[in-house]
Amino acid sequence: MKNRIGNIFSLTSFGESHGPAMGGVIDGMPAGVPINLDDIQFFVNRRRPGQSSVTSARAEADRVHVLSGVFEGVTLGTPIGFVVYNEDQHSSDYDALKDCYRPSHADFTYEAKFGRRDHRGGGRASARETVSRVVAGAFAMQALNQMGITIRSKVIEAAGLPEPSPWYMEELIETIEDARRKGDTIGGCIRCIIHGVPAGLGEPVFDKLSAQLAYAMMSIPAAKAFEMGIGRDFARKMGSQVIDQFATADDGSITTLTNHSAGIQGGISNGQEICFDVTFKPVATLMRPLPTVDRQGNPVTLQPGGRHDVYVVPRALPIVEAMAAIVMLDNVLMNRASQI
Amino acid sequence: MKNRIGNIFSLTSFGESHGPAMGGVIDGMPAGVPINLDDIQFFVNRRRPGQSSVTSARAEADRVHVLSGVFEGVTLGTPIGFVVYNEDQHSSDYDALKDCYRPSHADFTYEAKFGRRDHRGGGRASARETVSRVVAGAFAMQALNQMGITIRSKVIEAAGLPEPSPWYMEELIETIEDARRKGDTIGGCIRCIIHGVPAGLGEPVFDKLSAQLAYAMMSIPAAKAFEMGIGRDFARKMGSQVIDQFATADDGSITTLTNHSAGIQGGISNGQEICFDVTFKPVATLMRPLPTVDRQGNPVTLQPGGRHDVYVVPRALPIVEAMAAIVMLDNVLMNRASQI
Amino acid sequence: MKNRIGNIFSLTSFGESHGPAMGGVIDGMPAGVPINLDDIQFFVNRRRPGQSSVTSARAEADRVHVLSGVFEGVTLGTPIGFVVYNEDQHSSDYDALKDCYRPSHADFTYEAKFGRRDHRGGGRASARETVSRVVAGAFAMQALNQMGITIRSKVIEAAGLPEPSPWYMEELIETIEDARRKGDTIGGCIRCIIHGVPAGLGEPVFDKLSAQLAYAMMSIPAAKAFEMGIGRDFARKMGSQVIDQFATADDGSITTLTNHSAGIQGGISNGQEICFDVTFKPVATLMRPLPTVDRQGNPVTLQPGGRHDVYVVPRALPIVEAMAAIVMLDNVLMNRASQI
Amino acid sequence: MKNRIGNIFSLTSFGESHGPAMGGVIDGMPAGVPINLDDIQFFVNRRRPGQSSVTSARAEADRVHVLSGVFEGVTLGTPIGFVVYNEDQHSSDYDALKDCYRPSHADFTYEAKFGRRDHRGGGRASARETVSRVVAGAFAMQALNQMGITIRSKVIEAAGLPEPSPWYMEELIETIEDARRKGDTIGGCIRCIIHGVPAGLGEPVFDKLSAQLAYAMMSIPAAKAFEMGIGRDFARKMGSQVIDQFATADDGSITTLTNHSAGIQGGISNGQEICFDVTFKPVATLMRPLPTVDRQGNPVTLQPGGRHDVYVVPRALPIVEAMAAIVMLDNVLMNRASQI
Repeated sequence: MKNRIGNIFSLTSFGESHGPAMGGVIDGMPAGVPINLDDIQFFVNRRRPGQSSVTSARAEADRVHVLSGVFEGVTLGTPIGFVVYNEDQHSSDYDALKDCYRPSHADFTYEAKFGRRDHRGGGRASARETVSRVVAGAFAMQALNQMGITIRSKVIEAAGLPEPSPWYMEELIETIEDARRKGDTIGGCIRCIIHGVPAGLGEPVFDKLSAQLAYAMMSIPAAKAFEMGIGRDFARKMGSQVIDQFATADDGSITTLTNHSAGIQGGISNGQEICFDVTFKPVATLMRPLPTVDRQGNPVTLQPGGRHDVYVVPRALPIVEAMAAIVMLDNVLMNRASQI
Repeated sequence: MKNRIGNIFSLTSFGESHGPAMGGVIDGMPAGVPINLDDIQFFVNRRRPGQSSVTSARAEADRVHVLSGVFEGVTLGTPIGFVVYNEDQHSSDYDALKDCYRPSHADFTYEAKFGRRDHRGGGRASARETVSRVVAGAFAMQALNQMGITIRSKVIEAAGLPEPSPWYMEELIETIEDARRKGDTIGGCIRCIIHGVPAGLGEPVFDKLSAQLAYAMMSIPAAKAFEMGIGRDFARKMGSQVIDQFATADDGSITTLTNHSAGIQGGISNGQEICFDVTFKPVATLMRPLPTVDRQGNPVTLQPGGRHDVYVVPRALPIVEAMAAIVMLDNVLMNRASQI
Repeated sequence: MKNRIGNIFSLTSFGESHGPAMGGVIDGMPAGVPINLDDIQFFVNRRRPGQSSVTSARAEADRVHVLSGVFEGVTLGTPIGFVVYNEDQHSSDYDALKDCYRPSHADFTYEAKFGRRDHRGGGRASARETVSRVVAGAFAMQALNQMGITIRSKVIEAAGLPEPSPWYMEELIETIEDARRKGDTIGGCIRCIIHGVPAGLGEPVFDKLSAQLAYAMMSIPAAKAFEMGIGRDFARKMGSQVIDQFATADDGSITTLTNHSAGIQGGISNGQEICFDVTFKPVATLMRPLPTVDRQGNPVTLQPGGRHDVYVVPRALPIVEAMAAIVMLDNVLMNRASQI
Repeated sequence: MKNRIGNIFSLTSFGESHGPAMGGVIDGMPAGVPINLDDIQFFVNRRRPGQSSVTSARAEADRVHVLSGVFEGVTLGTPIGFVVYNEDQHSSDYDALKDCYRPSHADFTYEAKFGRRDHRGGGRASARETVSRVVAGAFAMQALNQMGITIRSKVIEAAGLPEPSPWYMEELIETIEDARRKGDTIGGCIRCIIHGVPAGLGEPVFDKLSAQLAYAMMSIPAAKAFEMGIGRDFARKMGSQVIDQFATADDGSITTLTNHSAGIQGGISNGQEICFDVTFKPVATLMRPLPTVDRQGNPVTLQPGGRHDVYVVPRALPIVEAMAAIVMLDNVLMNRASQI
């Protein structure tokens, strides 16, 4: 609980954004998985700023130091400890934030909970926390790939612009530039598809695969909605429009003609593609003067400082994939105990 | 895991719809809570069929037998075991289903997972499973009410009809009757509001309060989407439209002028109302002949049998409230360990 | 935690000795295990009083009602709910105990923890609580037996009398009769041997198989010591006297010439017999007037009432075996995730 | 599970003895505890070799690097990540061990479990793993001390020599020297006493305080027996010899005249001193040629190499205290949820 996710395959993470390092312990990684550390690093690099023309270009070297659990390129079955050092934090930039609460950030709630907080940046509430998730997800992915399970994701909507539109990218860049001029920000929605999942993963009642995925996705900073398949639109459909008729495939296996269930029936995978959407709210840090209050409740105005992103949804793609990988590997392992 | 939800306050449930009984163990209920068993029963009765003019009228007595943990009307701090017996199951009605897979039900996935299933009704995948959730939620609610925390919910959309419309009920009844004639079904969406929550509940990273609520809601049968506040619409807003400005209330406490965050910032409650929506797909059992396959993959046609509901979303209201109560009480107790 | 034991295979138990029933939920039982309910009942009967000439003869029918998880004689993979009703509790016998604390019972500590207690008998602290353990253990045993793992136990010491002595039983009966005359009681020690365990069970660091067995045994009421193999005597040996030399068996498998390690090395089973001892303190209920205090700290004298056992260690045999079975099945299932 | 201990306050550890580092994540440390890092380091230094005249003098710098969770000298309530680097491992010393199994070590069982092992030293089975326990215990201790709970331990028996003897140290040194000449080793027994524990800690059934302590102690490498109070001797006593009579202290509080229960009744602390013994087997690495087998079952002889300790029980003192501290702090926090 608290800073741990997973039953058999689990990540326990640590780290404040402006402390010495982020990191974690991956427990329950099965022995015998060949690990390519370059691929781990490559996957982690995807969440850095500056990966696309529409996100910012701030350099940030997130070198992953693996401290245990891998020997001669193969997992030992023992826990994998890892550390990613924080650099160039410029903590002094944050002195102005020490005594006041940024709107829609976690400053106020952390103090309500813990009686104190690390005021330098977001501390544990910083998006930087996700680097540990991505490392763990990258390890899980290497195990899943061995089993033929692959995970991919894409942005399907940003600032209300749906992706399939031919003018999408042009309009998006314009929207971003407009928001930047106004000191405003935008959000978006990511679709994730998991391919190659065998039927039978997930638990019937509380630990439904869909419930575990919802938990994992909604734990990502700024996530606000989770939808399986057509999601909210299920409220607008007739049953006859969304049931999936069974059929027999050429190889004799049982399949479905449609996939409205998005790969999960009764909480358990049915062998079809798993598909879900995660919506992220716009970045909460606006580049404009913002009225707020200090710890004593006195009104103060926050002046914009440093430089911040207008649009960060693409940086969430590897995080969504990583969280999906953590859930899927855990369920593959859990399912080995389903039958005698 | 598996059939258990909760960290400190938890429910472990059991029961197949056509076995002898449903039930569970509520562990972690604090000692000293006065329990009104009539209120528990009243709450459980809300999920029975026949509670409103738009759901079916099948009689179903779900008497809760409390077997431990309550002494002289007060909780002992020991686990609360309870049983709700199954009656009138008419298992023979289900013989036709023994060897074939109903579309969009869990028949196929259970067999994929366990190698077998109780083919009489849905077994563990039946909506009847939720009776145990409602009992546990009713107990949690009595503890929460003592702390001033209340939970209520309502249907906000059914078959695409939004609730605030003046013609809503009239149109809904017409839609239901039309669906019934065609042997079809409809889904809907429930909004849940939690009032009186102190600031500070929820854990920063994985066990965000929003993530725990998403997990709990998506574990309810037929749940397909979970949205905090405006949910999916966050992808269509600018940051300036959805940040919540802090202010000082008349009593000196810090509050927010708006509640776009829906009561949770950085995964932790901020003292405002918590608000989320849960979407349920239409009932999967259509009252019309349905093509499917049997265990060997041969095509068969299922004939409609028994009587089934066209629209069950209102019956999910106490289930949504119960799951919310389980999560909230667990977090109240967990939070007691946040500070020395 | 609290009233739950086990990771994948788990028991969550409930029940006060003088409430309506004892029971529990067995979660994580794999699907496909043929269950003989008569054998379950037979195993449970072993813990009743009156099973041997040296324990008391009070009749107590502990009929196990299985409410879910078994269908057509085979486990479904779903949770197994069960109930054992309490009968003939004669709660009025206990009125005298309402306000005072019996020495070396849990009356005082329960009130310190929970602020109240069910004063009729021991409540949750009664040895009757163990009936749920024995039911769960009986189910686990049927799965283990399918895998060739067997568990047996015996009393090796009672009231200081070692079992191998030729006059053991004669002396023991004399000791018991003498104690009964004096209103006194005796304790003893049980040895448990687990046969047929494959090498590789247990986790390297905290969840060592020996640590899990110690936890399970020390959770039994009145257990006071847990020893692997020669236990305390390891402090009196030289290393050369207790290391186990490896050798190759006739079938080519690697074995050890001795078994000082008692089947576990580095926390993981090595394929040899697992052997441990559990010591139980004498029954705390003496049949003589006992000075104590009431809730306000005033001195009072407890008068002996009802009839109580002088010596109950043999009744703990099925409890020790049951707890061992719960641990072993859990570890068999956990170990399936050790390698990719 | 696996590499994690604790419910609310927990340690998840990682590290192979000859990998880059040992470390872990302490989760659930409450916010607001002042931390003295020098005292943490001092406590960790106690487990190093060379701390007494009877253990070896090998230098080993175990500098603890705290990476998160402490800010301006006080805990934040967020997880505490820490790393202790491994130095001077001389991995080449271990090449001879690559393909053969050292008697009474975990080489064979790790391979049985994981299909492979890090053959350089003990890997995860090395006693070096305990450094992470000691770090976590040192943090727990600082929180406990604030509450008036203190923990201390001492060796009470070594090589069969009881500590109270006036000639103990002289005889012990002679025994050690004799063992060293013969390439042999000795074990011993540690007594741990926990003072200042409030009544009410521990859970009634499985998570008895005694069961949790047994688990924690038996998870320490080489631990072979756990005894509450007089332990195994309870099998040799009459009930009248070991019950604890209640009495009222001068300050009006309820106490006991004796403490045979060793501070725990019915699994819950009663406010008296908690006292238990842990027995450690002799070091398994003998300094003499040892017959064993290789991976293929062929007989080989291990030649003694490097230098190893004859007697290491005093180095286990801080480990026993650390594990006790982890258990006690977890139970203090858990107990906050016992009453509404």
